Amino acid sequence: MIVSVYIAVSLDGFIARKDGSVDWLEHESGAEDYGYRSFIETVDVLAMGRNTFDQVRSFDGNWPYQVPVVVVTRAMSEDDVPADLVGRVSVSARKPEALLRQLAERGAKHVYVDGGLLVQSFLHAGLVDRLILTRLPVLLGDGIPLFGPLDGDLRFEHATTKSFPSGLVQTEYRSLRHTQPAT
Amino acid sequence: MIVSVYIAVSLDGFIARKDGSVDWLEHESGAEDYGYRSFIETVDVLAMGRNTFDQVRSFDGNWPYQVPVVVVTRAMSEDDVPADLVGRVSVSARKPEALLRQLAERGAKHVYVDGGLLVQSFLHAGLVDRLILTRLPVLLGDGIPLFGPLDGDLRFEHATTKSFPSGLVQTEYRSLRHTQPAT
Repeated sequence: MIVSVYIAVSLDGFIARKDGSVDWLEHESGAEDYGYRSFIETVDVLAMGRNTFDQVRSFDGNWPYQVPVVVVTRAMSEDDVPADLVGRVSVSARKPEALLRQLAERGAKHVYVDGGLLVQSFLHAGLVDRLILTRLPVLLGDGIPLFGPLDGDLRFEHATTKSFPSGLVQTEYRSLRHTQPAT
Repeated sequence: MIVSVYIAVSLDGFIARKDGSVDWLEHESGAEDYGYRSFIETVDVLAMGRNTFDQVRSFDGNWPYQVPVVVVTRAMSEDDVPADLVGRVSVSARKPEALLRQLAERGAKHVYVDGGLLVQSFLHAGLVDRLILTRLPVLLGDGIPLFGPLDGDLRFEHATTKSFPSGLVQTEYRSLRHTQPAT
């Protein structure tokens, strides 16, 4: 099983403003999708935190995901899933390792982890295989950080970097645990 | 006058560990200099903070800079400059704008600003023209951050991105204040 993080981040490492708003991201939309569609087509399950779920729900329009979503939270149960999302959204209170085990048992081969705290908990557990960061050329000064504390250094291998006419720079990193055999 | 920042940073935005150590940078040294020599040759004055000055002084070997250095601090005077550095290192307690004015009067056309807090104060004042970031593929989890609070968003224009076989990714950004006329 592969665990990927695919996320946009400011130059100073924020994924949203303090209040969760992503207005600084939105003006980048357009014909260019920064590889998102071809990425999401390979995903079996999208695991997101509660804040990200609430944020996506607050957007105008329909639920944007075709892929099954699991909201990872202790503050919600399956009964709290809105009627229009039953069958498409499930809820789990499991920790990263147990969650991945459960998803693997259900046949998931590629899990996409989204949201600041959930990404941090997967990184902390050393469970992120691919980190695809899309950096916007803006400093926000404050906000919700992508990265958090770790127990030690976490090294990655650089896979690819691509810059876009909009000024966004996308880099894919792979966990060294998967690219180097243990010696 | 052009103000540049040329700095190495971890994936999570740190320029050093909490204790100032840069051991995670050092194993990257070798034949590749990531454009440093050709950059430093164009610099007229290197402005660094007190912590960076102390850090550089603590390294084994000789003073590494040919270029005149100004240490920007209120905690040191010209009399505190070590004897072996008199004539190569000066001290200033000025704020960024006043410092640049003084350096311009002395003929400086390209100022290189180094060190976390000093870079933050120049960014906060909107005085950084070129931001050359070299990202190492490592998460440290904690340390001395490159970026700090701002009064508002600071947008840059992407100039170039280059990735190196070592996994380092170097991106040059230019301040939009210099690339777009005010309208």
